[in-house]
Amino acid sequence: MRVTQKVKKILDWYEGDPPGVKANLARMVSTGKLGGTGKVLILPVDQGFEHGPARSFAPNPPAYDPHYHYQLAVEAGLNAYAAPLGMIAQGADTFAGQIPTILKVNNANSLATNKDQAVTASVKDALRLGCAAIGFTIYPSADQAFEQMEEIRALAEEAKAYGLAVVIWSYPRGSISKDGETAVDVTAYAAHMAALLGAHIIKVKPPTAFLEQPEAKKVYEKEKIEIGTLAQRIAHVVQASFAGRRIVVFSGGAAKDLAGIYDEARAIRDGGGNGSIIGRNTFQRPRAEALAMLDEIIKIYQDKA
Amino acid sequence: MRVTQKVKKILDWYEGDPPGVKANLARMVSTGKLGGTGKVLILPVDQGFEHGPARSFAPNPPAYDPHYHYQLAVEAGLNAYAAPLGMIAQGADTFAGQIPTILKVNNANSLATNKDQAVTASVKDALRLGCAAIGFTIYPSADQAFEQMEEIRALAEEAKAYGLAVVIWSYPRGSISKDGETAVDVTAYAAHMAALLGAHIIKVKPPTAFLEQPEAKKVYEKEKIEIGTLAQRIAHVVQASFAGRRIVVFSGGAAKDLAGIYDEARAIRDGGGNGSIIGRNTFQRPRAEALAMLDEIIKIYQDKA
Amino acid sequence: MRVTQKVKKILDWYEGDPPGVKANLARMVSTGKLGGTGKVLILPVDQGFEHGPARSFAPNPPAYDPHYHYQLAVEAGLNAYAAPLGMIAQGADTFAGQIPTILKVNNANSLATNKDQAVTASVKDALRLGCAAIGFTIYPSADQAFEQMEEIRALAEEAKAYGLAVVIWSYPRGSISKDGETAVDVTAYAAHMAALLGAHIIKVKPPTAFLEQPEAKKVYEKEKIEIGTLAQRIAHVVQASFAGRRIVVFSGGAAKDLAGIYDEARAIRDGGGNGSIIGRNTFQRPRAEALAMLDEIIKIYQDKA
Amino acid sequence: MRVTQKVKKILDWYEGDPPGVKANLARMVSTGKLGGTGKVLILPVDQGFEHGPARSFAPNPPAYDPHYHYQLAVEAGLNAYAAPLGMIAQGADTFAGQIPTILKVNNANSLATNKDQAVTASVKDALRLGCAAIGFTIYPSADQAFEQMEEIRALAEEAKAYGLAVVIWSYPRGSISKDGETAVDVTAYAAHMAALLGAHIIKVKPPTAFLEQPEAKKVYEKEKIEIGTLAQRIAHVVQASFAGRRIVVFSGGAAKDLAGIYDEARAIRDGGGNGSIIGRNTFQRPRAEALAMLDEIIKIYQDKA
Amino acid sequence: MRVTQKVKKILDWYEGDPPGVKANLARMVSTGKLGGTGKVLILPVDQGFEHGPARSFAPNPPAYDPHYHYQLAVEAGLNAYAAPLGMIAQGADTFAGQIPTILKVNNANSLATNKDQAVTASVKDALRLGCAAIGFTIYPSADQAFEQMEEIRALAEEAKAYGLAVVIWSYPRGSISKDGETAVDVTAYAAHMAALLGAHIIKVKPPTAFLEQPEAKKVYEKEKIEIGTLAQRIAHVVQASFAGRRIVVFSGGAAKDLAGIYDEARAIRDGGGNGSIIGRNTFQRPRAEALAMLDEIIKIYQDKA
Repeated sequence: MRVTQKVKKILDWYEGDPPGVKANLARMVSTGKLGGTGKVLILPVDQGFEHGPARSFAPNPPAYDPHYHYQLAVEAGLNAYAAPLGMIAQGADTFAGQIPTILKVNNANSLATNKDQAVTASVKDALRLGCAAIGFTIYPSADQAFEQMEEIRALAEEAKAYGLAVVIWSYPRGSISKDGETAVDVTAYAAHMAALLGAHIIKVKPPTAFLEQPEAKKVYEKEKIEIGTLAQRIAHVVQASFAGRRIVVFSGGAAKDLAGIYDEARAIRDGGGNGSIIGRNTFQRPRAEALAMLDEIIKIYQDKA
Repeated sequence: MRVTQKVKKILDWYEGDPPGVKANLARMVSTGKLGGTGKVLILPVDQGFEHGPARSFAPNPPAYDPHYHYQLAVEAGLNAYAAPLGMIAQGADTFAGQIPTILKVNNANSLATNKDQAVTASVKDALRLGCAAIGFTIYPSADQAFEQMEEIRALAEEAKAYGLAVVIWSYPRGSISKDGETAVDVTAYAAHMAALLGAHIIKVKPPTAFLEQPEAKKVYEKEKIEIGTLAQRIAHVVQASFAGRRIVVFSGGAAKDLAGIYDEARAIRDGGGNGSIIGRNTFQRPRAEALAMLDEIIKIYQDKA
Repeated sequence: MRVTQKVKKILDWYEGDPPGVKANLARMVSTGKLGGTGKVLILPVDQGFEHGPARSFAPNPPAYDPHYHYQLAVEAGLNAYAAPLGMIAQGADTFAGQIPTILKVNNANSLATNKDQAVTASVKDALRLGCAAIGFTIYPSADQAFEQMEEIRALAEEAKAYGLAVVIWSYPRGSISKDGETAVDVTAYAAHMAALLGAHIIKVKPPTAFLEQPEAKKVYEKEKIEIGTLAQRIAHVVQASFAGRRIVVFSGGAAKDLAGIYDEARAIRDGGGNGSIIGRNTFQRPRAEALAMLDEIIKIYQDKA
Repeated sequence: MRVTQKVKKILDWYEGDPPGVKANLARMVSTGKLGGTGKVLILPVDQGFEHGPARSFAPNPPAYDPHYHYQLAVEAGLNAYAAPLGMIAQGADTFAGQIPTILKVNNANSLATNKDQAVTASVKDALRLGCAAIGFTIYPSADQAFEQMEEIRALAEEAKAYGLAVVIWSYPRGSISKDGETAVDVTAYAAHMAALLGAHIIKVKPPTAFLEQPEAKKVYEKEKIEIGTLAQRIAHVVQASFAGRRIVVFSGGAAKDLAGIYDEARAIRDGGGNGSIIGRNTFQRPRAEALAMLDEIIKIYQDKA
Repeated sequence: MRVTQKVKKILDWYEGDPPGVKANLARMVSTGKLGGTGKVLILPVDQGFEHGPARSFAPNPPAYDPHYHYQLAVEAGLNAYAAPLGMIAQGADTFAGQIPTILKVNNANSLATNKDQAVTASVKDALRLGCAAIGFTIYPSADQAFEQMEEIRALAEEAKAYGLAVVIWSYPRGSISKDGETAVDVTAYAAHMAALLGAHIIKVKPPTAFLEQPEAKKVYEKEKIEIGTLAQRIAHVVQASFAGRRIVVFSGGAAKDLAGIYDEARAIRDGGGNGSIIGRNTFQRPRAEALAMLDEIIKIYQDKA
C-alpha cells in the first residue's frame, strides 16, 4: 500500500495516537478509487438495525445478504464498509483483506422505548474480525448523552491501545427542536465535541442554515459567520473540527434523487469536507444503478482532490 | 460424529467464529434423528421458571423430575435439550455425552413485577456442565431491551471465546400491541436483530399476517412482500436472518392439538425454517404420546430435508 | 465422619457440583443427633438484624452473646448454625470444628425503607471463617427479585467454585397478597425457583392451603392436586423441588406453643420434608426449655428417618 | 508497646480477624493516657466536610490548619485521630508514628441534596498514609442504607485483609422521627447492626429514653428493660453490641458546657461504654481550654478503668 | 529545572504524596515567567466543550486550531495549559516538553439536559500524552455531587499512584441560588472540600460578599470574619484551604475589560491566592492583545511574589 504525501499529511494531524492507529487510518484513506486523495467514500449498513430488515432491504432484495454489501463496496472501489457485529462477521472471512471495515459497536432500533443505543459489540470483536476501526453514535442533547460519551471514552481508549481507529457518528437529538438536529450551530458543536472526545473520523449530517441555540445565534450574527450556502456551512463544520485537522464525512440521509446527491457531494467537496458516507441511497438502488451513482460521486471528489 | 455436506455448508455461514463454536454447532445439528439434515428439533424446559411447577408439570407428574426431560430428549432422538441452571445440572452427570445441552442463562417468572428476565447462570456454568450453547432471551420493544442486548453482547463474546454457540430467543413485548408481538414485520425485525447481535441460532414465534409498525406496513404493501401463508411468512423471517444464513427455529407456544402442531411444522419446513423448539406440547403430554408426536414431527422435517 | 448410605444417596442428587460442595453437604447432613438420617435441624440467628436486638434477645438475655447460640447448637446436637457475619465471626475460633456454620450473606432490617436485603458478607468471608455454606434470601414477587437472583447467581457460582454449599431462603413478598406469601402455589413456585437457581438446600415457610395465582388455581383444581393437609402440601413442595432431589427445610416462624411446633415437625416429616430451621422458638426460650424442645423435635424426625 | 491484660482480653473478642487487625486495634487501645485501660478517647475532625470550614474552625482559627489537630491529639494523649483524606494526608509525614489515625472514608456535606455520603477515600489510601483503621458512616433507616451497608461490606473486607481495623459510625436518620434518631431502641439497633456488619469499633450517639418503634416499645415494656438513666441506656447499647464484646464509643455532638460533657463521660463510664469521640467540643475551644477539658475526661475514664 | 526555596516550601505542603506527584507539581510551579515565585498563571481551553466552537472561537478565528493555544501559552510564559482530550492530543507531539499540560478529564456542554459532566478522558490518557496533571470539575450542591466526588476519588487515587498531580475545579451549582454560586461562604466551603478530597491545586471563582447558607451566615457575623474586600475574601478562601497549604487559583469568568482583570489579579495577589486561570479573556482577544494582557498580569503577580 502506497502512502501518498496527502495521506502522510493527514496522518500527521493525529499527534497523540500510536502507529497502529495511523496504520489503520492510512488503510482507510489509501483504499479504493479515492485512495491517496484525502477524500473518502464509505458504505454504512446499519439500517436493518435502525429501521428493520423489510424497510431496509425489501426495495432491493439481494441486499438481505450480508455478502452483497461487501461485494458492492469492493467493486465500487470505496474506502471502507461499516456495519454492526452480525453483518461484519458474515463476510469477514470471505472478504478478508479486500476492504477496510468499521465495526459499528452501538445501535438503535425503531422498536425501542427510549432515545439511546445499545452497545452491541466490543473492541475485541473488532480485532478478531480484522476491522480497521470502531464506529459509535452519540446523541448530544439526549438524556443519555453523558452516558454515551463515557461509553465511547472507554471504548476509544481501548481501541486506540490496540491500534484501531475511532469513528464517531455525532447526531444531536433529544432536547432540541427537530430543525435543530441539523442546525449549523448544533452540527458544528456536535463535530467539535466528537473531536474533543478523540474521534479520528467524524460523521455528521449536512447542516442547514437554521440556528438553534439563542446564545450561539448572537455570535453567528455578530461575527458574521458565513452560512448561506451548504459549502460555507460545510467549511464552518470543518473549521470547528480542529481547523480542518480531522477527517469529517457527511451522511446521505433518506433516499433522494441523483441530482440531489451529486449537488450535496459537490458542496461537501467545495467546503473542504473529506467525503460522504452513503447507506440507503446505495443499497436500496439496484446494484448497477448504485455502482453508477457511486462512480459519479467518486468523480466529483476526484475533481478537486 | 460424521459431519455431512449439509452441515458443512451450515458451518460455513458462521464466518467470524472460532472452530470451537463450529464444533458445538456441528454437535447440535448432527445429533439425533434429524442429525445431518440441517433440520433441528429442540426440547426447551423453562416453563417451571416462567409459569411455576404446578402449571408446568402437574398435567404429567413424572415431568417434575429433571431426569425425565433428559431421557425424553435422548429417546426421541432430538438435537438438543435447553433448560435453566438447576434443571441442566440435575442430570448433567447421568446423561453426560448423550445429548447436546443449551444452558438458558436468563429467565422470567410470573411472580415478577416487571417485563424483564434475571440472568441466572453464567458461561462458566455452561462450560463446567458440558453444554454446547447458551440460550438468552431478549424482549425487543421492552424498556429493558437495550440492557438485555448489552447483557447478551457480553455473554455472547465470552461464550464464543470459549467455543460455545449462542442461541437467542427474540420475543418482542412491551411497547407494542398484543397482536404486534407475533406480527410478521416485528418477528422478522426481531430475528434480524438477533442475527446482528451475533446469534448462531435464532428462536422466534411463528408470525401472523398482522403488521404492527405503520412505516413498515407501507413498505410491505409497496414492495408486495408475500405474507399470506405461514410458509411465506416463515420464508420472509428466514430471509431477514441474513438471507437464510442463520439457523432459525420456531417455538411451539401454548399446548394445542396434534393437527395444529403438524401443520405448523409443515409450514416451517416449506418456508425454509430450520426446525421447531417445542416445550409444553411435549412434556405436558404423557410420555408415549409425546414420543409419538415428536416422531411425527421428525418425519415431517425429514420429508424435504 | 461416617457417611451413611442415606447421605450418599442425597449427595448423588447434586450431579453438577464439585466434590468440595458434596463434602460440605455431607458435613451438615452427617453432624448432630440427626446425622446420617437425611433429616436436618438448623439454628438460624438473624433476628437481631431483622427485628433489632431487644425484640430478639430481651426475652432471654443470655442470647445477646453470640457464643450462646454456638453452645446451644452444639449441645442440642443440631446439624448447623446460620447467622450474619458478626455473629458467625464472634465464636468462629472458640467453636471451630464443633458445628457446621452457614454464613447468611444478605440481611434485611426493620428500619429499612424498601423490601430488599443488603449483601453484608462475601464468599471469602465464609471461607476464612470456616463455614460450610452461604445462605441468601430472595423475595420472589418483590421489585428487587431479579436483582436478588442475579446477586445469588454470582455468589453461588463463586461459593461452589470454592466448595461451599448454597442455602436459599425463598420468601415471596412484594406484589402478592399477605395470604399469598404462604400460599401453597406460591411456596411451591418459590421452592422450584430456588432449585433452578442452583440451591443445594431450600428454605421455605410451611404452606397454607390458600392459592394465590388465578392461573395456578385452575391447574390445582383441574389436576386435583392434594393440598388439604399440611403433610400433603409439604409433599407437593418437595415434589416441586426436583421431585424430591433437593434438601428442603421449613422455617418455624413466630414464637408459638410446643404442641404447634411438634405438630408442624410431624407434618414436615410425614410430607417428606428434610427438616426444620427454628430460630426465635429456640433462643427466646430459656436454655433448658429450648434444649428439651429441640430434643423432642429430633425424636419426631428420628421416628421415620 | 506494652499490651496489658485488659487489652489482651479486648483483642480476644475479635475471633474472626487476622493478627494485623488485632495489632492495629492494640495500637489504638494502648496509645495515650488511657492506653492499656480499655477506655479510649478519640478526636474526630470531619466537621469541615459536614458543615463547612467557617462553621467548624472560625471559632478557633488555628484549627484551620490540619497540623493543629494532630498536635492537639498527640499532646492531649488521645488514643487516635480520625479525619477525611486531605486532613489525614496533611500531617501524615510530620506526625508519622506519633498517634494512630483513622481515615474517614465517606463523608456528607451540608450543600448536598440527599441524605447520603460520598465515598471519598480508599483502603489503599489508608495503607499508604499509615492509618490504623478506616472509618465509615451508615445511616440506618435512610433510603441509601442498604447501599451504604454494601459499601462498608466491601471496604471492611478489603481493610481486614490488609490488617486495618474498621470503625462504623452508625447514625440512624431518614425514615424515622427526629427524636427517633437518638431513641434508645434505635441506637441499640444501630449498634447491633454495626457489630453484625463486622465493625471492630462502634460509634453511636448517647441515647435518650425515647422509644421509636412500636413493636420494640412493647418488648421494652414487657421485658422491663431499664432505660431510665443515661448509664442504663449506655449499658443496654453495650449489651446489644455482642454482650459487651465490641468497643463502643459515644460521640459528643454539638458544642456544650463542660459540666454537660463531664456528666456524659461519667454515664458512659458507668454504663460500661468504652469511651468518647469528641470533635467540635474539642477544636472549637481555645487550645489550652481544650487540653484541660480532655485531661478531665481522661481522669473520669481512669477512675474506674 | 531549578527548584527554588519557595517551590520547595510549597512541595512540603503535600505530605502524603509520592515523589512523582511532587515532581509534576514542581514542573508546573517552576515553568514560565512566574516559575519559582509560587505564583501561577494557567491557560484553560474547555470553552469549546462548554459553549460550542463558534461562541468560543469565532471572535478570534485562529483559536479554532488547537496548536494556537499551545503556542500562546508557551510564548506568554505561562505555567501550564489545560484542555480536554482532543485539544491536548492535537499538539502533544509538536509541543512535547515545552509546557506542562493538564488533561481536563470531565466536561459539560450546553446541549446537555442535566447539570453534570461526562468523564471524557482517563489517567492513562494523561500519561500517554505526557501531562503533568489531571483536571476534574465537581459541582457541590448538585444532585450529582456525591457521584462526582466518587469519580474524582477513584481518578485521583489512580493519578497519584502514577505520579500525576490533581487539579479540582470546585464550582457549586444546583440546589443553591444563582448568587450563592459565588457566595464567599459557599466558595470557601467548595475550596475546603476540594482540599479534603485530595486536590493539589484548587480552582474556584473569585467570591462575592454574599452569604448563602443561613447557618454559615450566623457564624460569619458572630466571628466577625472579614469579607468586605475581594482581597479579604480571597484570604478567607485560602485560609479555608488548609490554612494556605494548598495552591489555590481563581478563574477569570466571562470576558471583561482589562482594568477589571488587572484589579482582580491584584486582589488575588493581595489576598494570598496563588494565581489565575484565564481562558476566554485570553483566547477571545487578538493574539498580540492577549500576550500584552498576560504579561501585565504576570507583572502584577511578580510584584509581591
